[in-house]
Amino acid sequence: MPKQSVYLDQMFSALADPTRRAIIERLTHGPASVSELAKPLKMSLPSVVQHLQLLEQSGLVVSRKIGRVRTCRVEPKRLEAAQAWLAKQRARWEARFSRLDAFVQEREDKHE
Amino acid sequence: MPKQSVYLDQMFSALADPTRRAIIERLTHGPASVSELAKPLKMSLPSVVQHLQLLEQSGLVVSRKIGRVRTCRVEPKRLEAAQAWLAKQRARWEARFSRLDAFVQEREDKHE
Repeated sequence: MPKQSVYLDQMFSALADPTRRAIIERLTHGPASVSELAKPLKMSLPSVVQHLQLLEQSGLVVSRKIGRVRTCRVEPKRLEAAQAWLAKQRARWEARFSRLDAFVQEREDKHE
Repeated sequence: MPKQSVYLDQMFSALADPTRRAIIERLTHGPASVSELAKPLKMSLPSVVQHLQLLEQSGLVVSRKIGRVRTCRVEPKRLEAAQAWLAKQRARWEARFSRLDAFVQEREDKHE
């Protein structure tokens, strides 16, 4: 399987969970420590850490430990890759409709 | 959990698989029957049907049975919803960077 496909698997899988999306949403406002991320979430710290590990594996989040504090931030390039795949599919679908429209228009013009 | 969140769970989960993404890619070129969709995929028809069921549950694909043939097509509005969520996150992240840039520029101007 091509590398790009594995990335997409991991990314979409990481995004398929409300807690992980809430973490991403929080991190788009700026980097945060693990305990800051855990505060608004109604779950244990180990559960939050597990979600963060999945987000890191997908490449959507990167973290760095300085002293005893691990700080997380989003990796916008990965968000971009997932968005690009979706945009490509929509563009192709819309192009198909434009061609169908043009075809119908052409036929109507001929019959006028 | 809000309805929108459940939709996003199902959509991202449906997209987290190369076979299901291949089906979506094929369908952006136009509607296709189940057997047409199965042809390029190296798997049994029941497996393909299972993937299609997941895609239908997510709302990304809709199908209609006429006589003995089930025809599938993509639902572009759902693709749009997934893309919109990602676009929102990126926009927020980028806006944060613009504000940081403006702040740094302001400080530099003051110290010149």
